[in-house]
Amino acid sequence: MAKILIGIDFGGTNLKIGCFDEKLTLLIKDSIPAQINAGPAAVVEKIGELTARLVSLCGHSTYDIIAAGIGTPGVVDVENGVVLATSNIKFTNIPLRQMVRDRLNVPVILENDANVTCWAERVAGAGKGAREMALITLGTGIGGGVITNGELVRGFAGNGGEIGHIIIKQDGRLCGCGQRGCIEAYGSASATAARATEAIAAGGKSSLQKIIETNGQISCKDVYEHSAAGDELARQITDETAKSLATLCINLLHITGPRRIIFYGGMIEAGELLLEPIRKFFNEHIWKIRKESIELCFAALGAEAGIIGAAALASYEFKKGKII
Amino acid sequence: MAKILIGIDFGGTNLKIGCFDEKLTLLIKDSIPAQINAGPAAVVEKIGELTARLVSLCGHSTYDIIAAGIGTPGVVDVENGVVLATSNIKFTNIPLRQMVRDRLNVPVILENDANVTCWAERVAGAGKGAREMALITLGTGIGGGVITNGELVRGFAGNGGEIGHIIIKQDGRLCGCGQRGCIEAYGSASATAARATEAIAAGGKSSLQKIIETNGQISCKDVYEHSAAGDELARQITDETAKSLATLCINLLHITGPRRIIFYGGMIEAGELLLEPIRKFFNEHIWKIRKESIELCFAALGAEAGIIGAAALASYEFKKGKII
Repeated sequence: MAKILIGIDFGGTNLKIGCFDEKLTLLIKDSIPAQINAGPAAVVEKIGELTARLVSLCGHSTYDIIAAGIGTPGVVDVENGVVLATSNIKFTNIPLRQMVRDRLNVPVILENDANVTCWAERVAGAGKGAREMALITLGTGIGGGVITNGELVRGFAGNGGEIGHIIIKQDGRLCGCGQRGCIEAYGSASATAARATEAIAAGGKSSLQKIIETNGQISCKDVYEHSAAGDELARQITDETAKSLATLCINLLHITGPRRIIFYGGMIEAGELLLEPIRKFFNEHIWKIRKESIELCFAALGAEAGIIGAAALASYEFKKGKII
Repeated sequence: MAKILIGIDFGGTNLKIGCFDEKLTLLIKDSIPAQINAGPAAVVEKIGELTARLVSLCGHSTYDIIAAGIGTPGVVDVENGVVLATSNIKFTNIPLRQMVRDRLNVPVILENDANVTCWAERVAGAGKGAREMALITLGTGIGGGVITNGELVRGFAGNGGEIGHIIIKQDGRLCGCGQRGCIEAYGSASATAARATEAIAAGGKSSLQKIIETNGQISCKDVYEHSAAGDELARQITDETAKSLATLCINLLHITGPRRIIFYGGMIEAGELLLEPIRKFFNEHIWKIRKESIELCFAALGAEAGIIGAAALASYEFKKGKII
């Protein structure tokens, strides 16, 4: 009987699970509300039930499962399989890996969701074949993952890959984390909207004013739309977003030397309007002592990255004997 | 017969070679002028002669050599053993590994000198036992090495570990590399001296003025000495050096999550006068959402790090079957 892999994408809102064959072909998937307020034990029970149902629906038994991977928000102690802390979900020091292992009775790996997405893109997406890469998730905040020597960089005590909090402007804007000048305080969706709102409050003229009058606030999407439509203030704001992201790419290049840097998350819906100026500023501001061949591109996998990455990572770590 | 390892530290001025036993105990070492102007072939001949002499002096034959490691300045293609480019030595696209292998007839690894120093500190110095660490070399420029998952981060196409060129102040001071706002433009010995010189030229009052009148210029050492003696302008300059290095440490923490960051190079002679304010600014400016346990400390090995690291790396890569 063929064996299968389970990929679990545990988010604040939804719980997605996919069954894959050994070549990582998706056999079946489903998504249900995570209902995290019911607590970790209830979430684990949901994982157990949905997994059993999907495995059965694709003609398998749970005995066919090789291993399962779980992606979760927050800081994760991968070695011990513990969710240390999250900002959106109130899970603190939850031994989620052991709980899921006890429920499914298979080897399990627990990993931060951005790292899972990074691994998915490396295995089956825009980073395919790159032993050195980085993924930048652009949403309300900025997160990401880094791969060096073909391995995820987890860092000591769960540090590493917190690339939203790289300081690009000493003494700059205050970030939600308490630091000043983080890339997240300039290049994220919320920072882009906030900078536009501040510029207008300071007397800047912009077609975005109508949006404030109508909606009471500006979204990052609004800023990109008005920038595309030719509004000068919006254009200055999106240029600063791009310039700050280009600086982040320069810093990543000099530290870990990725072959590709891949953008992922809600903001990439802006398409070339986002990416083209990042490339332009990167080329303008990168050092001149050597020509760089790094590629800046978009992620390829979309919303399925979470389950693909979790299943792929489970397979990888199982083969290496790292999870049992 | 016991086997030995050879560590070669090839610098712009000197060529140092050490013979080590398999436990990396130094048996014998010597240093001779590198005379790089004579060209790569002459340097390789010197390496061959000095190695043969040292091996013989410690009662061995060249047949006892397990492997040899070479540390060199510049950008190195480790996989192919080629010195791609250096700023101080005019070696471009030199297949130094193959040349030394042909001369010594043993397996050879070629690596960038800062990476070699980083490896030395990891194996036998202040980074002992740390699977995640970074080394920052503080001299005329700023260089360094990064270790993640127990392996040196070499990056794609020899990038990676160029931590002097992390941008900490977008649109800041012009760096020699062509970028603006690099840490090297604030925290290096030359930048510290330059900022002091500029501050005095701009009308700042300082006891350093006498140094300019006497010597025509200020050194980084002068700035630290006058800062220690209570000169206010010198203190502001050394504080900015420390703050910029603290920002570099914060950025390294968030990207690769080192357990220890180790300072190395000429500037560390300033001792606690250098390190204490770096720690102070780090604690002031690091995020508040989690307490960090990272250690900032000095390198332990001194001038022998180059030969120790080269021999240790040769041993490590040979055991892994990476060099033959």
